[in-house]
Amino acid sequence: MSELPVSIQDVETPCLLVDIDRVKANCRRMRDRCTEMGVELRPHMKTHKTLEGAELMTDGSKRKIVVSTVAEAEFFAGNGYDDIIYASPMVKEKLTKRVQSLASRLADFHLMVDSVVGIDGIIETPLDGDRKWSVFVEIDCNYGRTGCCWDSEDVLTICKKAHEAANIRFQGLYNHCGNTYVPDTDKRSKIQHETVANLMAVKERLAAAGIPCARFGCGSTPSCSKPIQDMSMLTEFHPGNYIFYDYMQVCVGSCSLDDIAVKVAATVISHKPEVGTLVTDCGWLAIGQDGMEREPSDVPLGYTPVVGHPELRVRGMTQEIGKFEGNGVAIDYSKYPLGSRLYLYPFHSCLTAAQHPVYYVHSGDKIIGSWTPIRGW
Amino acid sequence: MSELPVSIQDVETPCLLVDIDRVKANCRRMRDRCTEMGVELRPHMKTHKTLEGAELMTDGSKRKIVVSTVAEAEFFAGNGYDDIIYASPMVKEKLTKRVQSLASRLADFHLMVDSVVGIDGIIETPLDGDRKWSVFVEIDCNYGRTGCCWDSEDVLTICKKAHEAANIRFQGLYNHCGNTYVPDTDKRSKIQHETVANLMAVKERLAAAGIPCARFGCGSTPSCSKPIQDMSMLTEFHPGNYIFYDYMQVCVGSCSLDDIAVKVAATVISHKPEVGTLVTDCGWLAIGQDGMEREPSDVPLGYTPVVGHPELRVRGMTQEIGKFEGNGVAIDYSKYPLGSRLYLYPFHSCLTAAQHPVYYVHSGDKIIGSWTPIRGW
Repeated sequence: MSELPVSIQDVETPCLLVDIDRVKANCRRMRDRCTEMGVELRPHMKTHKTLEGAELMTDGSKRKIVVSTVAEAEFFAGNGYDDIIYASPMVKEKLTKRVQSLASRLADFHLMVDSVVGIDGIIETPLDGDRKWSVFVEIDCNYGRTGCCWDSEDVLTICKKAHEAANIRFQGLYNHCGNTYVPDTDKRSKIQHETVANLMAVKERLAAAGIPCARFGCGSTPSCSKPIQDMSMLTEFHPGNYIFYDYMQVCVGSCSLDDIAVKVAATVISHKPEVGTLVTDCGWLAIGQDGMEREPSDVPLGYTPVVGHPELRVRGMTQEIGKFEGNGVAIDYSKYPLGSRLYLYPFHSCLTAAQHPVYYVHSGDKIIGSWTPIRGW
Repeated sequence: MSELPVSIQDVETPCLLVDIDRVKANCRRMRDRCTEMGVELRPHMKTHKTLEGAELMTDGSKRKIVVSTVAEAEFFAGNGYDDIIYASPMVKEKLTKRVQSLASRLADFHLMVDSVVGIDGIIETPLDGDRKWSVFVEIDCNYGRTGCCWDSEDVLTICKKAHEAANIRFQGLYNHCGNTYVPDTDKRSKIQHETVANLMAVKERLAAAGIPCARFGCGSTPSCSKPIQDMSMLTEFHPGNYIFYDYMQVCVGSCSLDDIAVKVAATVISHKPEVGTLVTDCGWLAIGQDGMEREPSDVPLGYTPVVGHPELRVRGMTQEIGKFEGNGVAIDYSKYPLGSRLYLYPFHSCLTAAQHPVYYVHSGDKIIGSWTPIRGW
């Protein structure tokens, strides 16, 4: 597809489609929410990994972003972005030339660290000239993935070292509350409340120890899409997925189906009435497998719902093949002739987007451009 | 990593490593097996998608391959390859300019079709000049994914149309026996036996109807890695995964752990003794999620085994984070210091390889080159 297709019906399949109007609405809502709450928005780039998406998420400021890979950091830095958190727990062995170069040439390239060994590694690694490393300390507020436990002794040790080291600017606290991916509102609110309380407790312990902490933020699209009032005590939010949203976010209550801004166009290529399936040319390489392992009750429309066809449900996927069955009903094959088009909402748009070398962008049915993401590490 | 790293210990992580000696051995064994059985080998490119891998799989002939996407077809055609099957059920709507161009410029660019609607679409689509479409008919021998059922009336109708159409060269029958991914040897043998018998039955029905059928092959890495004698009746095999193999192939008995030719290098970036995990920088973006849904008994070492560390087992993955726990024992963190290196065998190398923009190739520990795969559709 070297020329731009005219309409979403013209794209060769499988193909990722970005609904620009939904993207803009999603970005605007998150910005407005942050403004109302008096919290700065530092969007995460990991979902879309494109300049165009970054422009919309930062409202053109090109400042204050989060990235998940060095490749993303280099890509955005090379295109005028600054004030970038590389949000992966740092260890000395990962302070490569590329990372040192980013720290040397950007005004604000922030590392994240969650261990004493990690902060010691940074202290032991000089930068050229008078340059200092900039460091956020990752705090685990009971999500349990990465981060130093909020109530541990290590938190104080790490922050103290970051504060006192001659070659470090200590920025503050970073938290990812991935445990807010829960559909129960009360449960989520409780986790949000605890997360804020625990972050504030760390801040108070730091204050008592004479360690200033200017920034302390949390992120996750569920928590920032449905924030609780306590969260206005934080200085920044850093959600990412909200630019596109996806069916997982619908299932946990972050958004509605109509907010999902990406879908994969697929063509019906085979009818298999003898086994009760219809087959499309979108397999797991184009849609991803996240959500496939869920129980049906978690994902009422199947892990990748077919836009406008709740009567279909995914049965299985292989590399370039997606099999659908009737969702509690028999398939009426006359509704989906061979060669006809279906659109699939991703369960997890961070994964789905990463599978595509180009995204086609549309307004209504009209294709208006394409975005090319950075990939790799 | 613009310069080539010296050793596999020097690569930045996460990174896909290809063991060239194992690749060569895997390719040689499959070639020798086909020679012994008197069956032609038509390797599938979907696992590696590289020129270097294709060179080894075709033993330098650049002929007789299978691809899963138009992008792969164009990539290999543009680099001197010919006699290519595009193995996706064809419908008229997918006979794009790109597909027509491939059919016009290659001596043998074969389509695959599994429906009457599909073959009619090809008949209705003229090619420039005297060019004819070349067509394989996909036969479903009870796997149930795609393909026309071996004992259906449609099989005869489709083959007859392909045989009689003025703009088609009918090549023969194509079968993917994906139902041979079973660990039980007797069960697999039975499926292999049935697959061959059903394909031969189609061939005999065609002969009775006066339709010559020169080629009839089946593929799947399990069936071709452990073929039964009946399979020597076929004219070609078209497995693909065997170039790399993976842990899924170990679990179904196609190979041993020591035959797996790819692994992902990862760095230990966090210790979380409070939840019993250690964390690496290889998440699902770098290793894939296939196999994650399996029961522990299906994947004794977890869906992505750690090379040399059967005492570890994956607990969970997010985009750039992989969490491991003790496999029936408590983790001895002193064995995996922060910053140390682990190597992960993929559960499904077709998926894992597709996640990486470049593969680093090594012999022993020494990096000797890099391969760049084609991606997209």
